[in-house]
Amino acid sequence: MTDKANRFVSPDNHLLHLITETNPSLFDEYDLKKSGLCLLDWAAVAVAGSREPCAKILLDHAQQEGGEAQSTLIGTGKCGTARQAALFNGTAAHAHDFDDTYPAIPAHTTVPVASAVWAAAERDGRTGLEIITSVITGIEVICRLGLALCPDHYRRGWHASATLGAIGASAACAKLHGLKGKTIMDALELAACRAAGTKAAFGSMAKPLQLGQAAALGLESADLAQRGFTSSKRVLNAADGFYALHSNDFSDAPLKKPLGGEFHIHGNHFKYHASCFLTHGAIEAAKTFFADNGGHPPTSIKQIHVCGHPELLKVCDNPGPQTGLAAKFSVQFCVALALTGKDTSALSTFGKHLTRDSELRNLMNKTTLEASANLNHEEAEVTFSLKDESTTKIFGEPVSSTEPDEERPAIEAKARSLCEPVVGKEGTSKLIQLFSALQTLDHIPDYSGL
Amino acid sequence: MTDKANRFVSPDNHLLHLITETNPSLFDEYDLKKSGLCLLDWAAVAVAGSREPCAKILLDHAQQEGGEAQSTLIGTGKCGTARQAALFNGTAAHAHDFDDTYPAIPAHTTVPVASAVWAAAERDGRTGLEIITSVITGIEVICRLGLALCPDHYRRGWHASATLGAIGASAACAKLHGLKGKTIMDALELAACRAAGTKAAFGSMAKPLQLGQAAALGLESADLAQRGFTSSKRVLNAADGFYALHSNDFSDAPLKKPLGGEFHIHGNHFKYHASCFLTHGAIEAAKTFFADNGGHPPTSIKQIHVCGHPELLKVCDNPGPQTGLAAKFSVQFCVALALTGKDTSALSTFGKHLTRDSELRNLMNKTTLEASANLNHEEAEVTFSLKDESTTKIFGEPVSSTEPDEERPAIEAKARSLCEPVVGKEGTSKLIQLFSALQTLDHIPDYSGL
Repeated sequence: MTDKANRFVSPDNHLLHLITETNPSLFDEYDLKKSGLCLLDWAAVAVAGSREPCAKILLDHAQQEGGEAQSTLIGTGKCGTARQAALFNGTAAHAHDFDDTYPAIPAHTTVPVASAVWAAAERDGRTGLEIITSVITGIEVICRLGLALCPDHYRRGWHASATLGAIGASAACAKLHGLKGKTIMDALELAACRAAGTKAAFGSMAKPLQLGQAAALGLESADLAQRGFTSSKRVLNAADGFYALHSNDFSDAPLKKPLGGEFHIHGNHFKYHASCFLTHGAIEAAKTFFADNGGHPPTSIKQIHVCGHPELLKVCDNPGPQTGLAAKFSVQFCVALALTGKDTSALSTFGKHLTRDSELRNLMNKTTLEASANLNHEEAEVTFSLKDESTTKIFGEPVSSTEPDEERPAIEAKARSLCEPVVGKEGTSKLIQLFSALQTLDHIPDYSGL
Repeated sequence: MTDKANRFVSPDNHLLHLITETNPSLFDEYDLKKSGLCLLDWAAVAVAGSREPCAKILLDHAQQEGGEAQSTLIGTGKCGTARQAALFNGTAAHAHDFDDTYPAIPAHTTVPVASAVWAAAERDGRTGLEIITSVITGIEVICRLGLALCPDHYRRGWHASATLGAIGASAACAKLHGLKGKTIMDALELAACRAAGTKAAFGSMAKPLQLGQAAALGLESADLAQRGFTSSKRVLNAADGFYALHSNDFSDAPLKKPLGGEFHIHGNHFKYHASCFLTHGAIEAAKTFFADNGGHPPTSIKQIHVCGHPELLKVCDNPGPQTGLAAKFSVQFCVALALTGKDTSALSTFGKHLTRDSELRNLMNKTTLEASANLNHEEAEVTFSLKDESTTKIFGEPVSSTEPDEERPAIEAKARSLCEPVVGKEGTSKLIQLFSALQTLDHIPDYSGL
């Protein structure tokens, strides 16, 4: 730590230090490659989401509003103002709930940050390395705030991806804009005093809208701060400020961690099942059971007992989902899918038709849930009891590689699966190429015609 | 109550019933006149606020974005999209913190609702009576929700004008759009899951921005719901929903109150001092003392003891404000102004220059504060102790007439004082005329050139 750094003592000043001092000299190959993968994954889920009803409505609304063609509404061939693009891309990218996740909060970190940064970078002509730097900064802010406010923040009902996402997006855009000192804090405070999002919206179009809103709010806050809009330094820290209103167990230790270690973007997990991340451990356990039994649908099952993190039961206990969106938040449904060999990575699997499937319904009726505080958000222990009275207990956790080079083929395959039906093989290849070369680009090329 | 009405049993359904059933046949002369006065007062504070730095920045930002000329940015001669107008007008109208207030929550109710409704009504060509109906509906929603969530909601730090303002604005726009049933609830839920605003922002530009944001969010939510954007019915009522996240003492009784009695717009208080409404009781007491002493600056004062509602001490205890905005939230400063015969209704009084005035500083140094739970938000009891050991205790509360006809001259005078420096005498007269004839208008005339 330099002398300059030591001047930063309050939680606010630690955030300011982090945003000011993060720069490419602190990045290793891992950071650069991981951020490129996160952005490719983000663009791919946005392309796929651009055809969902929630995105189509936002597109129509933006077209009625009009405005300068500042930034691309991904996957539509259309442009809009940077704010419209941030709102649209953030919503579209979360429409399938298939974007990356930082499990410990838990929060989706790339969508709010990248949706804001990308829209601003297109408008303002920023370089690929500036985009990467801003995205790593924004994700770092979300994760540190998340660790400072959790578990209470998420547990009691705040949708951390949206609340902290707005602040992270404002930090990322403040970094992209090159703001300094108090102006950076103004951006953060303007976002924090207006940031919102609740878990009660899960399973509806309002959930992705909350992430689009976080991106738009973060971008707008940084834009306004750049123009001289000021705030109050009380917004984050005061007794009636963001921290106090959003958690009972705020600790500033995660904010104080010195720069120079591993950036939190390392811990982003990519999703390979198109359902809530909390269901992934149980899905992996059920997939293992299915494979261990020779890939046959388990007719001999008497009972399935899922032991998971308490949040799993709060968010994903739905024994009879009626819609595809609701099915993504039904661990009973997700386990039944995996037990019958269905493709849990395919968007089409989470359609209304399968919620009525009698085989799945039968398995869902046999599923019981139990909360265990000993498990992490992303883990589950599933016990399968058969009619012959034998039982098998399997621990499941999301599959994820620690090396971006090893994970790249899977992310590119996911991108192809998501994008090709929407923008074709050639368009998808262009997209993959764009993000593999991102750090060398001096501006974002025109990709609106994809 | 009709049979149809009796089907409404949950808190959500009471809100839905209220929004669906409110119509002009339920309004008496008081409602029509009071809403016209509220809208005139709103437009006047917006015109005055349009020249403040926060508004100028939003205007510049909107002009860079571009967009269809759907609605007027009041006082600027410019138009923008309806969302830009709602954001701008809501922020400008609260820039001086001089807009009307419902004391029991407390919350500024007209600004978020009228800013959203007016922008939508201009864009969509609505009648004056439709505007009035929507505004009365939106204010009713804010007040009922406020009474259901308070005192805990405001006490712990939420800026009710912004949080409940967003929901009220969405209700008002849903009414204006003629939405029905579940679509109305979608609008409310899309606003509620994204509504925010904290008291920690008081005394800074972020405070009025929170009201502009509430208006923009309410309008956007109703627009999206109209286009088929849906939400979750859990957003308001669930254990992780809006009510639970925003209050420890939610009661649905205020939501259940049958329609047909007095609308809550009756209880809106107009502000005649350009400072936080919580300071008004103390100002009135000090004004009385000044008048009782022949209008002389009180050189013989030894001590001033202000006893007020606990919120007064939380929000307005500032013995040394450094800026005009901060001075509006310093009860010490406000009392000193009144004790020296300064014009507390003039915007220019709350400038940086007077925060350095030695006579005022001297009086502020003699002022002590005490909280009393026996007083309402808008009341204060001030004890003046003189050097001759005599003391005088004076009770103060905001001056407000119960009859719109009696209050109209004061509101028109306030409008002239606020608007003439900005849009001239003729423009101000046009504005006053516009709102006095509002209920007879079949559309909003072009007033952008004011």
